[in-house]
Amino acid sequence: MASSLASIQFTPTPASFPSLAPRLRFKAPSNIPVNHDPLNPITFLLRAALVYPNKLALAHPDTPNPVAYTFSIWAQRTQNLAYALLKAGLNHGDRVAVIAPNTPLIADAHYGVLAARGILVPINTRLKPHEVAYILEHSGASIILVDYEYKHLVGSTKARVIVSNDTGRAGDPYEEFLTQGRAYSNERGWQGLEAEPDENTGAVLCYTSGTTGRPKGVITTLRGSYLAAIGNAFEGQINKTSTYLWILPMFHASGWTYPWANVFAFATQITLRTVNFTHIWNHLIHSGVTHYCGAPTVQIGIINDPLARKLPPSRPVTAIIAGAAPTAHLIAELEKKGIKPVHVYGLTETYGPFTRNYEQDAWANLSLDERSRFMARQGHAFATAGEVRVVFQSENSDVLEDVPADGKTLGEIVTRGNIVMKEYFNDPAATSKAFKGGSFRTGDLAVIHPDGSVAIMDRSKDIIISGGENASSLAIEQELASHPHVLEVSVVARNHIKWGERPMAFVTLHPQHTSKWKGRHHEFEKDLKAHAKPRLPGFACPEWVEVVPELPKTSTGKILKTELRKVVAKL
Amino acid sequence: MASSLASIQFTPTPASFPSLAPRLRFKAPSNIPVNHDPLNPITFLLRAALVYPNKLALAHPDTPNPVAYTFSIWAQRTQNLAYALLKAGLNHGDRVAVIAPNTPLIADAHYGVLAARGILVPINTRLKPHEVAYILEHSGASIILVDYEYKHLVGSTKARVIVSNDTGRAGDPYEEFLTQGRAYSNERGWQGLEAEPDENTGAVLCYTSGTTGRPKGVITTLRGSYLAAIGNAFEGQINKTSTYLWILPMFHASGWTYPWANVFAFATQITLRTVNFTHIWNHLIHSGVTHYCGAPTVQIGIINDPLARKLPPSRPVTAIIAGAAPTAHLIAELEKKGIKPVHVYGLTETYGPFTRNYEQDAWANLSLDERSRFMARQGHAFATAGEVRVVFQSENSDVLEDVPADGKTLGEIVTRGNIVMKEYFNDPAATSKAFKGGSFRTGDLAVIHPDGSVAIMDRSKDIIISGGENASSLAIEQELASHPHVLEVSVVARNHIKWGERPMAFVTLHPQHTSKWKGRHHEFEKDLKAHAKPRLPGFACPEWVEVVPELPKTSTGKILKTELRKVVAKL
Repeated sequence: MASSLASIQFTPTPASFPSLAPRLRFKAPSNIPVNHDPLNPITFLLRAALVYPNKLALAHPDTPNPVAYTFSIWAQRTQNLAYALLKAGLNHGDRVAVIAPNTPLIADAHYGVLAARGILVPINTRLKPHEVAYILEHSGASIILVDYEYKHLVGSTKARVIVSNDTGRAGDPYEEFLTQGRAYSNERGWQGLEAEPDENTGAVLCYTSGTTGRPKGVITTLRGSYLAAIGNAFEGQINKTSTYLWILPMFHASGWTYPWANVFAFATQITLRTVNFTHIWNHLIHSGVTHYCGAPTVQIGIINDPLARKLPPSRPVTAIIAGAAPTAHLIAELEKKGIKPVHVYGLTETYGPFTRNYEQDAWANLSLDERSRFMARQGHAFATAGEVRVVFQSENSDVLEDVPADGKTLGEIVTRGNIVMKEYFNDPAATSKAFKGGSFRTGDLAVIHPDGSVAIMDRSKDIIISGGENASSLAIEQELASHPHVLEVSVVARNHIKWGERPMAFVTLHPQHTSKWKGRHHEFEKDLKAHAKPRLPGFACPEWVEVVPELPKTSTGKILKTELRKVVAKL
Repeated sequence: MASSLASIQFTPTPASFPSLAPRLRFKAPSNIPVNHDPLNPITFLLRAALVYPNKLALAHPDTPNPVAYTFSIWAQRTQNLAYALLKAGLNHGDRVAVIAPNTPLIADAHYGVLAARGILVPINTRLKPHEVAYILEHSGASIILVDYEYKHLVGSTKARVIVSNDTGRAGDPYEEFLTQGRAYSNERGWQGLEAEPDENTGAVLCYTSGTTGRPKGVITTLRGSYLAAIGNAFEGQINKTSTYLWILPMFHASGWTYPWANVFAFATQITLRTVNFTHIWNHLIHSGVTHYCGAPTVQIGIINDPLARKLPPSRPVTAIIAGAAPTAHLIAELEKKGIKPVHVYGLTETYGPFTRNYEQDAWANLSLDERSRFMARQGHAFATAGEVRVVFQSENSDVLEDVPADGKTLGEIVTRGNIVMKEYFNDPAATSKAFKGGSFRTGDLAVIHPDGSVAIMDRSKDIIISGGENASSLAIEQELASHPHVLEVSVVARNHIKWGERPMAFVTLHPQHTSKWKGRHHEFEKDLKAHAKPRLPGFACPEWVEVVPELPKTSTGKILKTELRKVVAKL
């Protein structure tokens, strides 16, 4: 076992230990055929607890009160949580909110809430109190599980509030809650809990971070969660020997279903309360980490950390990247450190990733620059996803028509199938708009290449119309990011007297190169424009470049172009 | 690519090449929710053809007319087959029989028949004409795809018969049939084929080899095939870099769903018409084979072949073993050759494997003999399977009760869930008997150990009642097989004047040791009894040992205890 995890000194609470010969299965629902098991990701944990009861399932090391749970004990704790929720009056389909960073609490909730046949509502801890209040109100959550550090986000509420001090020790209110659940179960165990007979029942209610307007509540199903998790486990080639490091927040689209995917694969999970690069490298080096997920902005922090080093080839690490395409620079830096980047794409409405960039043998012979252009594509629908299409809709027609697979014609990415959300909660108008034409409309504008891979050009609102040409801000960003001194870049439209619109680039510089350009931003602008000229058509070259200390971002790390547009509007 | 496959000189027929920009998806069924894709294993091939069109999908090397197909071409050929079947008048749910050894024909049928929304009926080529006639009659197959070598198995029939000469070349009647399908499609492609809207529709109709009575027709579903295939891909850790060698007949429980599992994982498949150990070793050594399935009898042939050698650790090979537990000798010999044995268990009614022996870290410290005892257990339900239970049924009760998990109490293995058959075709009485108590009754007698793993003791009829004790013939066989000179062994009950029954062992000797014991079988009997004495309770020690040149077997390689019992009855 990994040295830094093996050193955890911890004994779980007495209520965490299962009875001697637990039956690790639910009470079978009646009146369903012998050949039908409703798909449900909780079954992954019951199976892991049966097959590898003593394997380390969940470690939470970098806190004053570190904890570590085996599959057997973790399963019992999620069962306790289910009974505690039932004792607290939870009814079938009731919502349970959880407000927590990556901790055992939110990991537990991904099983315990589903086992009680409730719907989990993970809430982004970076939201403002009034935003949290809106979600609590809209979801109608009757029980709130909250980490001590985020208690202030819960205002006055009629819901029952359970606080976790994140200790795992007796005396912690959350532990008391679990202990009550264990007592309430009266040792009926899993057999006292009814399996959900309908796999199309809601599982999780995640709110989109919505850069504009009110957040929308995305309802996913048990079937979709099961299939998406298996898809992620397979695409990541996660297995029993894997160790997954939680960098991506679990509240973000249910951690892209990885709380279940890792358990399906019998992998060990490590939770970190914060994105702390020292801790991350400590675990990459000492804890045998093999997989983690994160947006490019986080990946940039990882490769630039002073502790960063080349990892031994005996323990290859896979970085699953979504949120934006990895740049050539990022790909090269990750690979230098022995980390294999895998580019995936998705939205909260698609359980996180539903496409993957599939590496082709022929790319091995390409230059980094050429290879990174291929790797920046969002690629093909992944293992258990349905189709991915790029479409347009003629006026007065309901039919979505495919754009030609020419790598040029812009259309909207749509998908359908088992890993598309069920609906927006209590919002039939938004649901029917999102499903217009019989597919889920992502709102992302893309081309489809002759090989069937899709490449996002922009969100519809991010296209820059320069001299009558459509310039993709993403494509411009991709090229500008290949400048070795650029750390991050975002491009938006700025009005232009002659061309209508012209691209303006906001750039942060690499820490190593900041001093070089200090007081010489104008020279840097010239340098970057010269870099862009051979790489981009004239209408897409940035007319203006502004070096800034940092870019405005959403709570989930997405760059807020709306803020940049406000800046531009004032120029 | 593997040298022995790369040397294949072959150009597919013109009809095998897809049109320039094929849409690799079916016409979407109408009136199903946006978030529902009926699970269907054909989607694996469409996805592989999209993501890795030029990767080698299927090679058929060791024939006068070797062939090799990429995913793109193979997908087109299965589409041609679907249209050819529709042109021949196939209606939804009609049965299509295939009588073939492991060839592209039967691999194609696993996709083409399903794409035409027919039900595939794979027929064992080792059956007698009257047995085949029964299956053709009972299944009501309206179209028969037959390999040239097995034409004689098709008697007079009203069904349309298509013969394959297994050439893949123009002029072959099967190729003509595919070409007609391509013409009939009129280039409507996959979009001209309706996806099956109901995932619980029948997919395959496999007949059990039934050692007694008429074979029963097992109907599996699309959903079950999809989930079982993913389970097998995951359990085998098959991926894009894998090469699967077809030793197990594909007609046997649809090749345990591997025709789909391999494609899900983007693996290459190699088909062999016969179990030829020279060819098998050629491919293990030269074609980069990573996976194969087979019963212990076949595995014994592999390890004893003169070509057998240690394979390089750089390309680990996994042998998936079912049909009977691997013995200590077999495990040791496979491991010596760099082949990792994985023991799985299942029946035709469970899509092949539904349990797996999960290796535990602690076993690494055990002696081979102790370790093989653990590895002989059938283990736990696997990835996408439902529960596995060992039960008894009290008189006058419908409820199946679990036996204690003590490793001692005998009960019947039952299971339920997504990888249990839908029904016995046209046999509601047999179906309801098999599902009595709300689970599928395997008829296998087993114990359940405290760790939840199951271990088969016997088929109910194979228990030997010796002095009032239940002796498991399997447990006795396992111990006798640990004698280094024993190749295979089968134990049946023989009447005994004092004890009621006593075990009698039929043994074949290892080729290297046959000469040693020639004319000295009585000495060998003493030697084997002495070997058994410290290993088995007195009532389980064989009273009689008979050395035979070979053991009687079914067409699928199972030892026919019924034949041995006939021998015993005459003694």
